[in-house]
Amino acid sequence: MGLSILGATGSIGRQTLDVAEGLGLEISALAAGSSAQALETAARRFRPKIAILYDEKAAADLRGRLADTDVKVLSGMEGLLEAASLPQADTVLAAMSGAVGLRPALAAIEAGKKLALANKETLVCAGRLVTAAAEAAGVPLLPVDSEHSAIFQCLQGQGEVKRILLTASGGPFRNHSAEELKHVTREDALRHPNWSMGPKITVDSATLMNKGLEFIEAMHLFRVPPEKIKVLIHPQSVVHSAVEFADGAVIAQLGSPDMRLPIQLALTWPERKPCPAPALDLTKTAPLSFAEPDLERFPCLGLAMDCAKRPETADGAVMNAANEEAVRAFLEGRIGFTQIYEIVSRTLEALSGRPGRTLEEILGSDEEARRLSKACLSSIS
Amino acid sequence: MGLSILGATGSIGRQTLDVAEGLGLEISALAAGSSAQALETAARRFRPKIAILYDEKAAADLRGRLADTDVKVLSGMEGLLEAASLPQADTVLAAMSGAVGLRPALAAIEAGKKLALANKETLVCAGRLVTAAAEAAGVPLLPVDSEHSAIFQCLQGQGEVKRILLTASGGPFRNHSAEELKHVTREDALRHPNWSMGPKITVDSATLMNKGLEFIEAMHLFRVPPEKIKVLIHPQSVVHSAVEFADGAVIAQLGSPDMRLPIQLALTWPERKPCPAPALDLTKTAPLSFAEPDLERFPCLGLAMDCAKRPETADGAVMNAANEEAVRAFLEGRIGFTQIYEIVSRTLEALSGRPGRTLEEILGSDEEARRLSKACLSSIS
Repeated sequence: MGLSILGATGSIGRQTLDVAEGLGLEISALAAGSSAQALETAARRFRPKIAILYDEKAAADLRGRLADTDVKVLSGMEGLLEAASLPQADTVLAAMSGAVGLRPALAAIEAGKKLALANKETLVCAGRLVTAAAEAAGVPLLPVDSEHSAIFQCLQGQGEVKRILLTASGGPFRNHSAEELKHVTREDALRHPNWSMGPKITVDSATLMNKGLEFIEAMHLFRVPPEKIKVLIHPQSVVHSAVEFADGAVIAQLGSPDMRLPIQLALTWPERKPCPAPALDLTKTAPLSFAEPDLERFPCLGLAMDCAKRPETADGAVMNAANEEAVRAFLEGRIGFTQIYEIVSRTLEALSGRPGRTLEEILGSDEEARRLSKACLSSIS
Repeated sequence: MGLSILGATGSIGRQTLDVAEGLGLEISALAAGSSAQALETAARRFRPKIAILYDEKAAADLRGRLADTDVKVLSGMEGLLEAASLPQADTVLAAMSGAVGLRPALAAIEAGKKLALANKETLVCAGRLVTAAAEAAGVPLLPVDSEHSAIFQCLQGQGEVKRILLTASGGPFRNHSAEELKHVTREDALRHPNWSMGPKITVDSATLMNKGLEFIEAMHLFRVPPEKIKVLIHPQSVVHSAVEFADGAVIAQLGSPDMRLPIQLALTWPERKPCPAPALDLTKTAPLSFAEPDLERFPCLGLAMDCAKRPETADGAVMNAANEEAVRAFLEGRIGFTQIYEIVSRTLEALSGRPGRTLEEILGSDEEARRLSKACLSSIS
């Protein structure tokens, strides 16, 4: 049986293709946003049944490029949904960035696929909906985020959870003062000390919003209330996360900061197979340190932890949409680094408390939040 | 069903009684070496069916002390064997120090008891015999050593093991030069930086022989060849040990350096219950560092790792017996610290390669090694 990859040309997608090749997995579908050239290359290498570009024009381009092959080219949300539910695949790896990944993830679950989840927005926006759907369909949600993969591993065969210890590198500005944070540039923000990732998540790591999204993700994946999740700043990114159990024992997962490890585990679980990621040599790593996060300098984390307390509302979707728009504006040089928080908090203030039980409510709030945050953006930039 | 404790007045035994009280366990038998007063106190508090002192004279004293109770007092190896196989107990915690614990451990296994094993000499001397007996009887060996408890926890629900990472504090002389080691005193050796333990194991920690004994113990408990066990010096004693799996992921167990945690886990497994040990606060611990052990300054570790390669011989029993005698002489002020290694290596040199398949062969080699190391001792002290 095969693997369908949603978000095949991004950082996670490309590493997934490397891992899949190493494991000899068949690729059923490859989907991406608008990168026709990159998806053509991948499609020629892996020969999926279908290739999808969300962008219609880019899909037309790709259709021409792949005319000499038997790869069927689709487009739009319809194409993504077909990729997510293709009969030839038993596993779907969801690695699209942003809220656009939500409907395909639900479609994969409803089609009974194992869902390897790298798209954290899916759970941030619709955690209750998605976990309930997975439970109803009897399919596992296999986390691909390194922290959640770590927690998943630590939970195996153990007892009652006291707390989840969600580690965070602290990003490139861990030691910046509040004043210094006002003046950091796009280039500064894209220089992550430990992980090589796409630009959106790298900026999210710098604001600690990424840890906030992961906080909400962990709550849904592992069915724990927010007060049982503790964020720990761990600059070395060696302990990928840990779990404290009822007796006080802490089980942690450690490894090199290489996403191929959690990607592969999501694809081979419950087996483990040799992985091309470099082995961890604890005698060569810097001493491992841990500290409390500073919610004053990094208020995005606090915003998210606060949203986590209202899982029945659409607040997660609102926060995520506003953050996507604000980070885009920051990457385009339209706003400063600390204004990301301003946009997100203003949008949340205006829209907090909307119901978030159905897909329609969630997608409606996502849209409304984008509209409002764009208005905010034009008023300040 | 009840718990029998062999070694009830030592450090592990006393902490086991605290834990057992917290868990509300019934105590079936309490056994110790010669501490009549301490065992009387424990027997009055826990009212076991039987109380045993290995030393005949001390047992007679205890019999008088407990004359007003219904506790039956026994003595000698016969008493230990009865304690190990008492029908009222379903679990035996073996915490006697030294090779004297071997026969009672085997008796407990043969009587079908769960064996919570704090006596590492049992596996060092007779690892193959004991693990084969446990397998034949279908009883679990539950490790109480903090490192082995950590490894046991890390193995739950995971896949193929690549390596066991056995951590060691490095003891009080971790940074001593070879020259400085020649002049350390009994008092220096008894000042362990992290753990509070009995004198024999504290000296073993200072020579790293303790890690060598644990190396052999781990090999037998977890059925891995010696080349799959890696000793890591970890001065903070927070990571109690770890396991590296086939894919390179490392699962580690962390906790406060408090023996009540592994003791309790051995008694409640597969459940975990709240434990009186202080919770680990990673934001307050010193940064966690790891280094290679130095086998030149700490040659006892190398001796043991070498013995581990010959599990079919009685070399483990010979090394352990010589070490027991040498440490006793060091504690009595008769030899210097570095002479412990000399005694053990000379004894091993003379007796290496003797067969160690049966209990008789092992006990015979133990006896022969004690005779020879005592001769060595009188020649140098």
